[in-house]
Amino acid sequence: MNDAVVADRHPSTITTGLDRLHSLAGQRFIIGDVAPEIDGGRYPIKREVGDRLEVFADLICDGHAQVAGALLYREQTDEVWREVPLRFHDNDRWTASFPLERNTRYHYTVAAWVDEFESWHRDVTKKVNAGQDVTVDMTEGAGLVEIARERAQGEDRASFDRLVAEVAAAAGSPRMQEFLFSEEIGRLMRRYGTRIGYTQHPTVLEVVVDRVAARYAAWYEMFWRSQGTDASRGATIDDCIARLPYIRGMGFDVVYLVPWHPIGRTNRKGRNNTLIAGPGDPGSPYAIGADEGGHTAVNPEWGTLDDFKRFVAAVGQYGMELAMDFAIQCSPDHPWIKEHRDWFKWRPDGSIRYAENPPKRYEDIVNVEFYEPHGGQPIEALWLELRDAVLFWCALGVRIYRVDNPHTKPLPFWEWMIREVQDQYPDAVFLAEAFTRPKLMKALAKLGYTQSYSYFTWRNTKAELTAYLEELTQGPANEYMRANFFANTPDILPTILQQGGRPAFLQRVVLAATLSSVYGIYNGYELCENEAVPGKEEYWNSEKYQYKVWDWDRTGNIREWITRLNEIRKENPALHEYDNLKFYNAWDDNILLYGKMARNANNFILIAVNLDPHSPHDAHLELPLWELGLPDHATVWMEELMAGYRFTWTGKHQHVWIDNQHPAFIWRVTPA
Amino acid sequence: MNDAVVADRHPSTITTGLDRLHSLAGQRFIIGDVAPEIDGGRYPIKREVGDRLEVFADLICDGHAQVAGALLYREQTDEVWREVPLRFHDNDRWTASFPLERNTRYHYTVAAWVDEFESWHRDVTKKVNAGQDVTVDMTEGAGLVEIARERAQGEDRASFDRLVAEVAAAAGSPRMQEFLFSEEIGRLMRRYGTRIGYTQHPTVLEVVVDRVAARYAAWYEMFWRSQGTDASRGATIDDCIARLPYIRGMGFDVVYLVPWHPIGRTNRKGRNNTLIAGPGDPGSPYAIGADEGGHTAVNPEWGTLDDFKRFVAAVGQYGMELAMDFAIQCSPDHPWIKEHRDWFKWRPDGSIRYAENPPKRYEDIVNVEFYEPHGGQPIEALWLELRDAVLFWCALGVRIYRVDNPHTKPLPFWEWMIREVQDQYPDAVFLAEAFTRPKLMKALAKLGYTQSYSYFTWRNTKAELTAYLEELTQGPANEYMRANFFANTPDILPTILQQGGRPAFLQRVVLAATLSSVYGIYNGYELCENEAVPGKEEYWNSEKYQYKVWDWDRTGNIREWITRLNEIRKENPALHEYDNLKFYNAWDDNILLYGKMARNANNFILIAVNLDPHSPHDAHLELPLWELGLPDHATVWMEELMAGYRFTWTGKHQHVWIDNQHPAFIWRVTPA
Repeated sequence: MNDAVVADRHPSTITTGLDRLHSLAGQRFIIGDVAPEIDGGRYPIKREVGDRLEVFADLICDGHAQVAGALLYREQTDEVWREVPLRFHDNDRWTASFPLERNTRYHYTVAAWVDEFESWHRDVTKKVNAGQDVTVDMTEGAGLVEIARERAQGEDRASFDRLVAEVAAAAGSPRMQEFLFSEEIGRLMRRYGTRIGYTQHPTVLEVVVDRVAARYAAWYEMFWRSQGTDASRGATIDDCIARLPYIRGMGFDVVYLVPWHPIGRTNRKGRNNTLIAGPGDPGSPYAIGADEGGHTAVNPEWGTLDDFKRFVAAVGQYGMELAMDFAIQCSPDHPWIKEHRDWFKWRPDGSIRYAENPPKRYEDIVNVEFYEPHGGQPIEALWLELRDAVLFWCALGVRIYRVDNPHTKPLPFWEWMIREVQDQYPDAVFLAEAFTRPKLMKALAKLGYTQSYSYFTWRNTKAELTAYLEELTQGPANEYMRANFFANTPDILPTILQQGGRPAFLQRVVLAATLSSVYGIYNGYELCENEAVPGKEEYWNSEKYQYKVWDWDRTGNIREWITRLNEIRKENPALHEYDNLKFYNAWDDNILLYGKMARNANNFILIAVNLDPHSPHDAHLELPLWELGLPDHATVWMEELMAGYRFTWTGKHQHVWIDNQHPAFIWRVTPA
Repeated sequence: MNDAVVADRHPSTITTGLDRLHSLAGQRFIIGDVAPEIDGGRYPIKREVGDRLEVFADLICDGHAQVAGALLYREQTDEVWREVPLRFHDNDRWTASFPLERNTRYHYTVAAWVDEFESWHRDVTKKVNAGQDVTVDMTEGAGLVEIARERAQGEDRASFDRLVAEVAAAAGSPRMQEFLFSEEIGRLMRRYGTRIGYTQHPTVLEVVVDRVAARYAAWYEMFWRSQGTDASRGATIDDCIARLPYIRGMGFDVVYLVPWHPIGRTNRKGRNNTLIAGPGDPGSPYAIGADEGGHTAVNPEWGTLDDFKRFVAAVGQYGMELAMDFAIQCSPDHPWIKEHRDWFKWRPDGSIRYAENPPKRYEDIVNVEFYEPHGGQPIEALWLELRDAVLFWCALGVRIYRVDNPHTKPLPFWEWMIREVQDQYPDAVFLAEAFTRPKLMKALAKLGYTQSYSYFTWRNTKAELTAYLEELTQGPANEYMRANFFANTPDILPTILQQGGRPAFLQRVVLAATLSSVYGIYNGYELCENEAVPGKEEYWNSEKYQYKVWDWDRTGNIREWITRLNEIRKENPALHEYDNLKFYNAWDDNILLYGKMARNANNFILIAVNLDPHSPHDAHLELPLWELGLPDHATVWMEELMAGYRFTWTGKHQHVWIDNQHPAFIWRVTPA
């Protein structure tokens, strides 16, 4: 374990008077409540390139002297700290900010001190104003300048030399005060003057600065096997390339594919997750590994590694990016099982332990063991192999990883692996597929995941959505967790989509795409596919276990709706941001009213959604004119962006009627 | 600076893959949100002897295995941790508690692990219930027992040996399961079974366990010089001893005296803080030090060191305790100035720098310098001398120190000095006289002050009192700050007492004595003395600068009221507690209604105070029957303790009329 991590942070372990005296005496300031800071600095916060990081801290010192402080920051590999002066905020709280210009990790912390010269200057000014004699004070001030002079070099030293001479020449005359109070001396003294009681916040804090796509992107998930036109075989890479114009045409940024590795044959699952595969059944792509290879191989049915390189290039040519599914489990045929017996758990009867969550069994997969038996040492070779598998795909141009079931793998593995990869590829994005307990979901985000799945899929009512979004975007989790709102996944066909028909699909994609700045759908969503295993949230005839072809022009599809939605997202910077969400009053529980204001652009988007897929609803609402700095009786232009028309509203009390067949208004609001 | 304190807590400083792997791999759990914990463990929390400390923590681990954990604790000088099993609370949160039996510092922290045997037991039970074959599982379970056996010794080893033999003999038969599921094996395996992923919270936390008097005491402050009967000279120690029956008679626990050291003659202040003392003026006792001695001397006018020892003994014989005023500033005649020139600041003209807060000057005192000039090293000899001055009085039996103006001395000095003294005298209590900025006041408490003065003196309205008391007793400050509610001090005669007359004095002492569990008054309060310097909160003819005699039987005095109040405090354990305060509804802004329920006794006190000293008020109120577990229509006995009568109330809606001449009801409420 890291020694620094287990160290006591309070001084009780130092036992003798003088040692303790010197250990404490340097901490003249209490630097408190530094923000942002997660768990005392144990975990980094997250931001994106182009942001400014605003830092706050309480600077607490004894006495009445003039406090000063600095925000210190550097890129993680820099030796030297850069310094930004802290400015007083209120009630002993100070603040400063710095620009996050590069996709890397920055370190930051805070320092505080007493500005000896400024304290002198302030006190002497008060005495002068009170008509007190300050002759001796002037001599003291000159002494402080003299001390500072010794620290200066070059041009500054020359200025000091000149000024010191001038002060000396003026000694005893009123001109001495004029010199000592001059702006030039003030400037030099801020830089070279004595910093009394210099104290640095004991923790170096870290911010992961991701690229903007970590916060703002639209994802399209698909099964590579069902992108073709022949239901008797899997699609090829060329079939998938042919699909790219369709996906880009809807405005998506990320194409995310389920695992494309060879699939195991032993205990292969059949259609609808049956225990025995039929002769032509392709098996679950999550049962990774066969004679053809494992985590660094391409399924030969799909294509070759060269084909794959063409695919990556094609995705890029369409202005999109590929996301890979990183699933650690192995099929019983994975090459690692023969090559690395110690990475797996063997039972007393000589059999391998299959994955299980008793009484459930997963006979087509086995899990690797990250530690030696009975909680022993980490199995280094496995950790390295898994990291290197990710680096293998990084080298081929894949920079986005959706990670399957991360909550069943050791947390320190993720902290280590993500950092290892991002040290080489700071643009690597990791999305945690963990629909698990809330604190475990947050833990994965804290220790490094760029994005997280969330409970959005199961938040349907106004109360649920409001409470959950406020927790995500306004609470402490906002500092480290970005929720990627998937409206459906291959494993989740939520009840509202099963029962709500097309209006539900229209509604939920608007919520996903506007409540969060990063969202996704899984193919078929645009076709309103909603046939479920009865009583479950699983798809009937899931592509997970069988070949399938889709009619992408199927009647009732909502491609145009999604296309327009993605256009609106692109055109409006307010929707590129994550934590600028605010809810407003609409006096009907079926109508959700919320808005987003761009931080650095003149762009305010207001959205009203009818949450009931079964019928129209109407509501009085409070138009948030105050967000535009307008009075309650002002007139504004309302531009409805989905249908494309304009009108004006005057006054903050308005009324809206929303058809469930067109369940959302997205208004751009501007002063009339 | 302490190395541990400056260490990075996140792993970014470890740069290579394998080092980082091993540094992280041991942290299998995220142990989060440990409570109570102040600023990541940097400062200790506070409790009193006899409490139990309840600790909570989130234990976050991957997967589905059976989590277990322990609260670890020890007295600060112990080598060995004691372990209390954590029990599940909710939502990944766990809790346990331990008794605080001694007046010392305890350390505590939390550990978590996966219980390998219990995980096995739980999973196999599920398989058995599902009718699955568990033959191989039984062999695995026997293997876990075998591993644990090796760790046991003595009797436990013998039990293991017997059980392992029984299990082996039963191999393959249903009896094997019976043995492995037995309570005896369970008990042994909880102790010796493998703890997978054992992770300890990286911070060792500390709780200062003070004696009960730190939380519960009534203080009486007095000027030793004015306890006699001759206004032309200061009182003697025997005069003060003669006053003890009066003070104890009112029910006070602590007699607190302003500094009793020799007083400087140079620039001695005259009556009412005038710059020039008259011939017989005794000077401020806060201008400490003269030819007769400094911080370890007794003012010869008051008595000798032997007299002082008699005084300490006499205070003890009356069941009370002496509190000393520790004021670090020196008169210009203090012996240290000659002996230790480097402890003071000298000006370029050779003069000493007097205390000042420009444009205000304090010509009768000089401050010591804790650091070498221009922010240099700490002046060890001074730090030690000041500590040793306190230890000098500790050795003479003084254990309570009210510290004058601590906020103008370096914060690390206090952290060091208080810990040094409490290492030898854990019963030493330090009260910070700091009516300063809120965060500085809290900082002094965090770094070691046992008690703090507070803003109570200036909180008069219902809204002010409610908000401030909730901040003190229900917010985070409750973990480390105990507010000692002084109703007046020699420096503060608040406006409400100046203008409100006797009713204000009656009211404010009830508030002080019942809102907080520790409170004080300064002599003259019981006489309703309220002559102020016009336009200020200062006493006219303050004892600080002149001899004075008091008529302790003066007309209009409220000695009986205070006596009864202190009796009520003693008789009712609910009033011995600090953070059990709750406010209740009374529908009039002049009526404050609040209550305290004893944690470990059957005692509920309800208090109604008329906050307006000028007229009677009445209010509907909500009688908090629910605190006694009673329904809204219940009947209770109301025993009014100030006047001593009983009645019943039925139902929670009641009405009260409170005369400003008798401005408080203190009811003991019991089910009828």
